[in-house]
Amino acid sequence: MRMIDLIVKKREGLALSGEEIEYIIGGFTRGEIPDYQVSAWLMAVVLKGMEEREITDLTLAMAHSGQTLDLKPVAPFVVDKHSSGGVGDKTTLVVAPLVAAAGLPVAKMTGRGLGFSGGTLDKLESIPGFNVNLTKAEFLENLARHGIVVAGQSADLAPADGKLYALRDVTGTVESIPLIASSIMSKKIAAGADAIVLDVKVGRGAFMKTLEEAEALAQTMVKIGRGVGRRVTAVISDMSQPLGYAVGNALEVKEAIATLQGSGPADFTALCLAVAGQMVLLAGKCATAEETEGVLQELLASGKALDKFREFVRAQGGDAGVVEHPELMAQARYVDTVTAPQSGYLAGINAQMFGLTAVTLGGGRAKKGETIDHGVGMVLQHKVGDRVEQGEAVVEVHANDRGKLLEAKANLSSALSWSRQPVKRPALVHGILGGGKPPGGCS
Amino acid sequence: MRMIDLIVKKREGLALSGEEIEYIIGGFTRGEIPDYQVSAWLMAVVLKGMEEREITDLTLAMAHSGQTLDLKPVAPFVVDKHSSGGVGDKTTLVVAPLVAAAGLPVAKMTGRGLGFSGGTLDKLESIPGFNVNLTKAEFLENLARHGIVVAGQSADLAPADGKLYALRDVTGTVESIPLIASSIMSKKIAAGADAIVLDVKVGRGAFMKTLEEAEALAQTMVKIGRGVGRRVTAVISDMSQPLGYAVGNALEVKEAIATLQGSGPADFTALCLAVAGQMVLLAGKCATAEETEGVLQELLASGKALDKFREFVRAQGGDAGVVEHPELMAQARYVDTVTAPQSGYLAGINAQMFGLTAVTLGGGRAKKGETIDHGVGMVLQHKVGDRVEQGEAVVEVHANDRGKLLEAKANLSSALSWSRQPVKRPALVHGILGGGKPPGGCS
Repeated sequence: MRMIDLIVKKREGLALSGEEIEYIIGGFTRGEIPDYQVSAWLMAVVLKGMEEREITDLTLAMAHSGQTLDLKPVAPFVVDKHSSGGVGDKTTLVVAPLVAAAGLPVAKMTGRGLGFSGGTLDKLESIPGFNVNLTKAEFLENLARHGIVVAGQSADLAPADGKLYALRDVTGTVESIPLIASSIMSKKIAAGADAIVLDVKVGRGAFMKTLEEAEALAQTMVKIGRGVGRRVTAVISDMSQPLGYAVGNALEVKEAIATLQGSGPADFTALCLAVAGQMVLLAGKCATAEETEGVLQELLASGKALDKFREFVRAQGGDAGVVEHPELMAQARYVDTVTAPQSGYLAGINAQMFGLTAVTLGGGRAKKGETIDHGVGMVLQHKVGDRVEQGEAVVEVHANDRGKLLEAKANLSSALSWSRQPVKRPALVHGILGGGKPPGGCS
Repeated sequence: MRMIDLIVKKREGLALSGEEIEYIIGGFTRGEIPDYQVSAWLMAVVLKGMEEREITDLTLAMAHSGQTLDLKPVAPFVVDKHSSGGVGDKTTLVVAPLVAAAGLPVAKMTGRGLGFSGGTLDKLESIPGFNVNLTKAEFLENLARHGIVVAGQSADLAPADGKLYALRDVTGTVESIPLIASSIMSKKIAAGADAIVLDVKVGRGAFMKTLEEAEALAQTMVKIGRGVGRRVTAVISDMSQPLGYAVGNALEVKEAIATLQGSGPADFTALCLAVAGQMVLLAGKCATAEETEGVLQELLASGKALDKFREFVRAQGGDAGVVEHPELMAQARYVDTVTAPQSGYLAGINAQMFGLTAVTLGGGRAKKGETIDHGVGMVLQHKVGDRVEQGEAVVEVHANDRGKLLEAKANLSSALSWSRQPVKRPALVHGILGGGKPPGGCS
C-alpha cells in the first residue's frame, strides 16, 4: 500500500477501505507517513467527504492508536458526556454529580479552554487544591470509590487524534463533519464509556453556526456510536447567547454550585436536566423522560446532588468549603458594570465576543499553554428577551487590570443588540437525536 | 498575512490575489512556509481550481522565484519550444536546427526522461562528447555564436517550480491544469524566450489522455503567455501511438538525423514541420503557413538544416561524425523482432507500454537519478493502419540483456492490437491554438 495512491483515491472522491484508513492512521502515528502527505489527504477529506462506514473506521483507527481504558472491572456501566464547546458552558460541573447521585457511575476526561471557548479543567482548577492530573490508577480508583471522576485527557489515549488535530489546526482542515465527529468519538471510545450523551452547541458562540451543521454533526456521531456498539444520544442546544449568566472560571463554578442548590439560571438548569436526563435514560435507569426528570429534581431539592459534588471535590483534593464560601476561590479586584444605553428589549448577546473578552481579561487562552486568571470574567444581569431600562446594569465585569476592564466594557457594549419591540427568547434545546428507551420504571 | 487563511480561502473556492500567491510561493521557496501547509493548499487548488488571473500570477511568482535569463543582449528575438512529453518524441532534435537554419535564434532548456516519457537531454547525451551542462555564460555564448543552444534546466531558474513539483509528486497533486500549465510556463518565461510553441501531446502515451484535457491545458498556457506579453502557440498532437518509429535514446537520434536528411518517418516529419512552422510564424519571419513550409522544406532538401545540426553538436562538444556514422553511438548487443501473430491491420500501439518497456530495457528511468543505457530501445516497422501479414516483423527490439529482451518482447506483443477490417490512421495534429499572423512575406 502506498500513501500517494490513497491520497489520489480520496481526491477522486472514492471511499477508502478500513484497512487503508488503518494504514494512514497507524503510519502517521508511528511517524512513518510524513505530515505533508497527511495534510493533502485531510484537505481531500474536507472537500470530498467520507461515507458513514469510513467515518466509523477512522474513529476506530484513532481510538485504537494508543491505550484504551477498560472501566468494566470497576463499574459495569459507565456514562460520559461531551460538549462541543461554547461560552459559559459549565454543564459538566452540575451534570456529573447529579447523575452520579442518581447511582450511575460517571467517568469523564476533558480539556482546557482555547480561543473563545472555555474548558472544564480550567473551571475545576478554580477550586483550591483541585487536581485534574490523575494517573490511570487514580482515575479508576476514584470511579470505583465515588462513582464520579473528571480528569484531563491522558496522552496515551487516542494519540492519533491529538497528532491529527495539531496538523488540522495549521492546515485549514478543521471544518469537516467527518473529521470533527471522528475526533470527538475516538477519544470517548478510547476512554471506555458504555453510553455517551453529546451536547452539540449551535449558534454564534459555538463551532457549529447553523442548525443544519449541528444536526449533521450530531447525526454522524450517533451513527458512529451505533457502529461501534455504544449507546449515544445527542442534545442540540442553543449557543446564540452565553449559557447561564456567568462567563469566567471561578464565576462559573459559583453559578454551578447555585444550580446544584436549586437557585441557578433557568436556562442553564433546564439544559443540565435535559443532558442528565438523557444520561439516565441511556443507562436504562428510568423508562420515561418524565420519571427521569422527577428523580433528578428530587436529587437537587434534597441536597443529594450537592453532597455528591462535595464528595467529588474532596476526592480530587479540592476544598469543598467553596460550596458555602465561594470567596475561597480567586476573586477579581475590580468589578464594574455595562449599562443599557436606552430602554428596550435585549435582542442579542454575541456569545463569541463574550468568550473573546474573557480571553482579553486573562481568563482564557489565545494560545495553548498560556496560564490563566481564574477570578476574572463577566456575569450577565439579563438575557435575550428581557426588558431593560436605560442605565440599568446588563453585564457585571470582573477584572484585575483597569486598562483591560475598560477594553472589556467597550467590547461587551458592542456585543449587545437592542430592540424597541419585544423579542422572543431563543429555544434552549433544538432537538434530541438517537437514544433508546429501555422498558420498565426507574431502577 | 497568514498561510492558514490563504489555505481556507482556496478551500472555500475563492480566488487569491497576486500578493497572496506571491506570499505563498516566496515563503515556500525561502523555506518559511512548511511543506504540510503547502500540500494542503495544493490539494485545495486541485479540487477547487484557479481563475485565469490567478494562474498567471502563480506563473509569474514561480518565474521570478530565482534568476531569470535575459537573452536580449545576445539575440533580439528568441523562440523556444516545449513538448508536454511522450514516447518517441525526438522533435527538438529536428526542430531546433531547422528553425535556427531559418535564421531564427533557438534557446532551449530541457529535461531528462522519467517513467514512460523520454527526455531530450538523455537523447542528446547518446552523441559521444555532447555536453548538456552549460554555465549561463556558455549558454549565452553558444546562442550568440551559433543561434542554437539546448541545455539542462539551470537550478537557478524558477526554483519554486522544482520545489513545488517535488511536493506535488508525493502528495497526489500533479493532475491539475492550473498547476501543470503554470509549472511549464514559469520555466519558459524564466528562460527568457520571446515566443514559445507548445507541443501538447494527447493520447495513451501522453499525460493528457483526452482531447478535452489537452485543449484545456493548451488554452490555459496560451492565455498565460498572453497575460505576460509572450507570443505563444500550442499545437495539439497525437500520442495515441509512439511518434515516428524509434523509441530509445541513440535510436531516436539516428531517426532525427534521417529526418533532417529528408528520409524520416512521414508522421514525425509532418509534426516537425508543423512545430517549426509555428515557431517561424510566431517570430514574424513569414506571413503564411504555406510560405513557411516552403522555406523549411528547402532547408531540409538543401542540407542546410543538417549543417546546422552538425554545428550545434560540435558547439556543445559532441562528435558530429554521428551524422554519417550513427554506429559511433551506443548500440545494443541483441536485436530481435516481435512478429504479427496473424494477418490483418495494426489497430493500436499502446505508447505508454512502449515507454515503460524502454525503462525495463534500461533505456529510461523508474526513479530520478538512475543511469540509463543509451543503446537499447525499439524500432517500429509498422504504424497504426498498416496492413501486416502473419509472421512479418512489427517491432525490432534492441537489448543488452537476454532476460530483459524476452520480457520486452512479451510486453510489446501485448501492446499491439489487431483488426481484420481496415483501420483509419490517426490524425497527427488535432488543432493549433493561439498564435499571431504578422503581415508581410518571409524576411
